[in-house]
Amino acid sequence: MAKVMLIGAGGVAGVAAAKMAQNPDVFGELLIASRTVARCDAIKADIEQRGFGKDGKKTVITTASLDAMDKAATVAMIRAFKPDLVMNIALPYQDLAIMDACLEAGVSYLDTANYEPPEDAHFEYSWQWAYREKFEKAGLTAILGCGFDPGVTQVFSAYAQKHYFDEIHTLDILDCNGGDHGYPFATNFNPEINIREVAAKGSYWVADPAGDKPEVTVENRKAFDKGWWVETAPMAIKRVYNFDQVGEKDMYLLHHEELESLGCNLKGIKRIRFFMTFGQSYLTHLKCLENVGMTRIDPIKFNGVEIVPIQFLRALLPDPASLGPRTKGKTNIGCIFEGVKDGKPVRYYVYNVCDHQECYREVGSQAISYTTGVPAMIGAKMFLEGKWTEKGVHTCEEFDPDPFMAELNVQGLPWQENFDPVMVP
Amino acid sequence: MAKVMLIGAGGVAGVAAAKMAQNPDVFGELLIASRTVARCDAIKADIEQRGFGKDGKKTVITTASLDAMDKAATVAMIRAFKPDLVMNIALPYQDLAIMDACLEAGVSYLDTANYEPPEDAHFEYSWQWAYREKFEKAGLTAILGCGFDPGVTQVFSAYAQKHYFDEIHTLDILDCNGGDHGYPFATNFNPEINIREVAAKGSYWVADPAGDKPEVTVENRKAFDKGWWVETAPMAIKRVYNFDQVGEKDMYLLHHEELESLGCNLKGIKRIRFFMTFGQSYLTHLKCLENVGMTRIDPIKFNGVEIVPIQFLRALLPDPASLGPRTKGKTNIGCIFEGVKDGKPVRYYVYNVCDHQECYREVGSQAISYTTGVPAMIGAKMFLEGKWTEKGVHTCEEFDPDPFMAELNVQGLPWQENFDPVMVP
Repeated sequence: MAKVMLIGAGGVAGVAAAKMAQNPDVFGELLIASRTVARCDAIKADIEQRGFGKDGKKTVITTASLDAMDKAATVAMIRAFKPDLVMNIALPYQDLAIMDACLEAGVSYLDTANYEPPEDAHFEYSWQWAYREKFEKAGLTAILGCGFDPGVTQVFSAYAQKHYFDEIHTLDILDCNGGDHGYPFATNFNPEINIREVAAKGSYWVADPAGDKPEVTVENRKAFDKGWWVETAPMAIKRVYNFDQVGEKDMYLLHHEELESLGCNLKGIKRIRFFMTFGQSYLTHLKCLENVGMTRIDPIKFNGVEIVPIQFLRALLPDPASLGPRTKGKTNIGCIFEGVKDGKPVRYYVYNVCDHQECYREVGSQAISYTTGVPAMIGAKMFLEGKWTEKGVHTCEEFDPDPFMAELNVQGLPWQENFDPVMVP
Repeated sequence: MAKVMLIGAGGVAGVAAAKMAQNPDVFGELLIASRTVARCDAIKADIEQRGFGKDGKKTVITTASLDAMDKAATVAMIRAFKPDLVMNIALPYQDLAIMDACLEAGVSYLDTANYEPPEDAHFEYSWQWAYREKFEKAGLTAILGCGFDPGVTQVFSAYAQKHYFDEIHTLDILDCNGGDHGYPFATNFNPEINIREVAAKGSYWVADPAGDKPEVTVENRKAFDKGWWVETAPMAIKRVYNFDQVGEKDMYLLHHEELESLGCNLKGIKRIRFFMTFGQSYLTHLKCLENVGMTRIDPIKFNGVEIVPIQFLRALLPDPASLGPRTKGKTNIGCIFEGVKDGKPVRYYVYNVCDHQECYREVGSQAISYTTGVPAMIGAKMFLEGKWTEKGVHTCEEFDPDPFMAELNVQGLPWQENFDPVMVP
């Protein structure tokens, strides 16, 4: 039985820990470490209260306080606990510090979101890909972005490529949250991050910019490895899609991190896009708040003190943690592929539908955290069972998808297939 | 030549002072008194810089600091300056304190908005009508609500009754602001007051509730003198009207103070309503801000200090004073009457159209302040010229409308008539 050190104590970390506790045959010991040890203790207490275990076995859980930006402290804790794997489910700007600690202490690594410099909203793989040689030489494995999207979307892609396609030409990733929390406006996690997402430029990946006719002004085309990015104004490309078990929703093209690695790893790929659903009311509220200056991140002087408007807004909005018990409805996240197999055209849609209330009953979190935390546990299970152990730094489409796909069906995220999907125009 | 003491130094007071300075043959001396004397000095400096006067004559302007809630101080200032009239263009909650001071010092009184208790958004005439006998016995005149609405709307009503009707059966007052300041969201005056207006229940006046079929749930019917109030949910009754020189606008039924006195003073009246235009974008912003709690008036704890959300919002929004130079477009405010004359049905619409930019060029304020400040000056002129001098406490429809109507045409607020108007359904 293996030992895992989990860094982080937020909603996703809580789900990952709970799912590990449901698989004590693999996860024998778990150390949960975070800056605020009380949050780690709360996760442990919740798991014990729910009585998770299997065949009389239970995961032994301990907790500790750790500032993951302090590399020396992280190295010392790894050396003391001797885990088989470090799972980083903390904030993305801590990725590099934790990877450095893993290299020094000689332990493999897994995370769910790629590195972002703290002073810059920009995210890309370059910083973490720069660690490839170091991990290879150290004989260690780093699994990057092992949540749902990124993560499962790349496993879906590898599965499609392995079983159904000789070449995949286009891929659309569709992330639909059909949940309703009953508030006129609230954000599922830190509103600052939500708002930054909507305010960011959109972009999609194309292999051949000459053959692409973008519908919006191309503000920039950045050369990238085998392909190009086509950047658009924020929320400039909108589509309506009818999602299984959710219904018709507006969705918008966003930049998303897995486009970068999939552009490199899918054979014959010509275009990859990512769409996320947003309700009109959500967007209207964001726009109005932006118009009056409430989303500003610079401090303004008020009654003699400095107040950052978006932080004040956050204090007014419902606590994201309070949404769990009241969110109803389902998420539907999946990938639509178009390409060829044996010279014939093929279309393939693979997706998971997840129910907010069922997730909440099972682990005390709604589907947003659940769909990220469960794949993180499965990724760790793949590594610990010797199925995903290639040395170096890898994204999820680089491993064998089959055992991961099998686990999704038994660990709470079953998937469905459709060989005649409605395509996104 | 007369002496006037003007209390207040806001936008409306500034317009009234400027218009008095354009009529130095009537207004020989003007004392502008307000809590912050610098604001009075700024009004004086602006008037002098514009060189207002007539036939070589100029109004002699002095300024003073005064807390109008301090009755003894107000009495002392009145006794020292010996004005013929005190014009109260300060905050409505000061009305009673200033009326008390006028009674004690023996001087007549004029205001533009009726009394509101400071702790209550409720406004009605009862408190000021209670002074009727005192002003009569003292041989003094109090002219209440002498702005545009209330004020000119009641002069229009008296004019209609005097010249065109034996009986007026219905009256709709339409207040349209077609101005555009170019901001996605801003308020024309204190946003707290703007927001309170929109959030308040609507109501209209009917003589006979049995014969009225309200289109919305009647939340309350309050008996009132000869008639009844029909209360509606906030913004529950909407109409679209095509305004001369402005175009088609959405307008909403609001409670408004002149409905109360006109219900008493118009012969044969059966229904009076008041509508004000609001743009959809303005209402959407207000609704979103309300939804997230930004219009809350209770303090919330943030970073260890107490912050009242609506006050913080006010700090973020453009300063209402900054809107003047950038507001384009026109206002259109008027009254539509239906009734009978010599047994025949009559319809009559009388209204003023006022251009924001022209007002700004003339006196440095846009039309919202202009349309209130000019009638205040005309009301004072009526009193000082001996035309509106009936003793006691009176609203504007109780005086002879003809000289006031003549002044409107020469003082910047010309009116137009339409004997075949589109009626409001």
